[in-house]
Amino acid sequence: MTNAEKALEMHEKWQGKLEIVSKAKVNSKEDLAVCYTPGVAEPCKLIAKDKSLAYKYTIKSNTIAVVSDGSAVLGLGNIGPHAAMPVMEGKAVLFKEFGGVNAIPICLDTQDTEEIIKAVTYLAPGFGGINLEDISAPRCFEIEERLKEKLDIPVFHDDQHGTAIVVLAGIINALKVVGKKKEECKVVVNGAGSAGIAITKLLLTYGFKNVTMCDKSGILSKASADLNWMQEKMMDVTNLEQNTGTLADALKGADIFVGVSAPGIVTKEMAQEMNDGAIMFAMANPVPEIMPDLAKEAGVRVIGTGRSDFPNQVNNVLVFPGIFKGALEGGAKHITDEMKLAAAKALASLVPENELNEENILPAAFDPRCAEVVSKAVKELI
Amino acid sequence: MTNAEKALEMHEKWQGKLEIVSKAKVNSKEDLAVCYTPGVAEPCKLIAKDKSLAYKYTIKSNTIAVVSDGSAVLGLGNIGPHAAMPVMEGKAVLFKEFGGVNAIPICLDTQDTEEIIKAVTYLAPGFGGINLEDISAPRCFEIEERLKEKLDIPVFHDDQHGTAIVVLAGIINALKVVGKKKEECKVVVNGAGSAGIAITKLLLTYGFKNVTMCDKSGILSKASADLNWMQEKMMDVTNLEQNTGTLADALKGADIFVGVSAPGIVTKEMAQEMNDGAIMFAMANPVPEIMPDLAKEAGVRVIGTGRSDFPNQVNNVLVFPGIFKGALEGGAKHITDEMKLAAAKALASLVPENELNEENILPAAFDPRCAEVVSKAVKELI
Repeated sequence: MTNAEKALEMHEKWQGKLEIVSKAKVNSKEDLAVCYTPGVAEPCKLIAKDKSLAYKYTIKSNTIAVVSDGSAVLGLGNIGPHAAMPVMEGKAVLFKEFGGVNAIPICLDTQDTEEIIKAVTYLAPGFGGINLEDISAPRCFEIEERLKEKLDIPVFHDDQHGTAIVVLAGIINALKVVGKKKEECKVVVNGAGSAGIAITKLLLTYGFKNVTMCDKSGILSKASADLNWMQEKMMDVTNLEQNTGTLADALKGADIFVGVSAPGIVTKEMAQEMNDGAIMFAMANPVPEIMPDLAKEAGVRVIGTGRSDFPNQVNNVLVFPGIFKGALEGGAKHITDEMKLAAAKALASLVPENELNEENILPAAFDPRCAEVVSKAVKELI
Repeated sequence: MTNAEKALEMHEKWQGKLEIVSKAKVNSKEDLAVCYTPGVAEPCKLIAKDKSLAYKYTIKSNTIAVVSDGSAVLGLGNIGPHAAMPVMEGKAVLFKEFGGVNAIPICLDTQDTEEIIKAVTYLAPGFGGINLEDISAPRCFEIEERLKEKLDIPVFHDDQHGTAIVVLAGIINALKVVGKKKEECKVVVNGAGSAGIAITKLLLTYGFKNVTMCDKSGILSKASADLNWMQEKMMDVTNLEQNTGTLADALKGADIFVGVSAPGIVTKEMAQEMNDGAIMFAMANPVPEIMPDLAKEAGVRVIGTGRSDFPNQVNNVLVFPGIFKGALEGGAKHITDEMKLAAAKALASLVPENELNEENILPAAFDPRCAEVVSKAVKELI
């Protein structure tokens, strides 16, 4: 049976991967009077006087919403809110299993930016955080920014920041393997959507100086046509020499390639033009921008992909459960850039120097220490 | 320790009465590939082609939202969405424990009718039903009606219809006890909010001919000042003789009193003016419109209250878990009046004729047959 067949069979059996269970027993009139009327009026009255007590008495303390509009789901594209549910349920499963965080999938039947912002604002009181998911760029940037301004609970778009944090963790360790300094590296990020832009931003925040973004049209510069507002903003801090050309041109003399783009678009010849000690993260799924064996043949030292059947898997599950675990436990109002950097460093530190090598730059997805160290790193900055 | 103290202690211990658990195991890369990427793409693709498959593959099959804006919470009034959470969580607990229905509390940070309608419409894709809760009248009527028009999942305002169904069940049996026919009874409903209006409507649908509504200002008629639009509509079908006067005037010669109003407002003298074989449902909480012993002294034959420490407790928990259990299992798109009548009759039938008496007209809240017979009655009409 293939994974696909097994997945269908299991989804039919589960009829929804989540279940809501009660922590309160209801076996007697007395139980009922404690968990519901009339006893329930007591916490209600206290919260009415002081909203912050919602964290003491309600699920807000440990529950987030996983919110999507179904506009950019995995590799499936704009499949809408109903079809996005299995993914959001899966995400909620991972939040619970890896981070102990209760997560509720909310798929919104609107793709209007303003309406999404309003809907999420309205449903926020019962939640301790909002994980935005699979919302297409550039709408996702505005939705996240505006919600961060409006809400006093953490808002985190995992496709952006989860990916960026794992990539940075991988790069931190890969640089040690190849013996290079961040300040001296030329970085090429291919794909200028939510993940590509967030990766670029975080690399710059971390201290990289020379990052060039590319997309289907090649190198992005201020002269590029059809840039969206966020891409335009990125042109102030990337490709400072205003180079133009193809992805192949960009890769000449590059030290690091990060791909969040399309299968097989980097050839062996293109990879050969990179500097010695090249690092590649080829994260197109399920077929990477360049297959690891081909990259190795081209002389690339370290290559990571999104796949679990190759070394160095870049998987957001290393990050998002710990981010919200830490934010909820510490009562964070926002996830800051400092927290993202700290999370990346914490993840990188899980691979000790003496075990670090070309094929081992990131902890494994099932390493239970990941959520622990990430949540601790986040909490220390609250 | 009082109930109130116990409730606070337990709410602090629970930190939220609900937990989200995963039905899917995630212990290996293979598990991950089935419940999340890449396997999860299979049900997504099928639902994208045929939305109805969401019931086959997602939590929509057995999950509802319990939606409130916190505007009319229990006896607490307009305490807002944060403070309403403990009640909505409690409701979700009861849905699960009594009906096996997964329920998620959503407290909305808006009390604008249009915004509530939009927010609920947007979040509907992941849910198989919407239970509206503790939304003040007359907004609740418009919100429910409009959502029923817009959505293809059941929308049910429990404060209205849950209450109405239990009251009707109680009245069906009380009439047997006192040996009266519905067509011959004069009914007085005191309280013209969401519950009072819904009770009145359901009694008329069931076949009562003579119902008079009262509120603080006394008997409601077309001449009454300050009627809201729904109360105005009710004046076409109630108090057909256009009587005026006080609640005391209304009770003269009445056979049935239904109170969803205020503590102690019916005196012994007022109750004495009712017809022989009088029936009273005095449901103000925690102190009824008239205490049962006083009503008995006045000659009232059957009296029910909202309290568990007196006979004949009128408790919505007899109804709402079964309503949604049946609706979800049967795939109902709407909860119809026929279903409400059938649910009331099914509940009434749980008290066999030979056990029926003044102090035993309704099944007990913890009778597991309630959800069974109500859900069956609903399903048979889908």
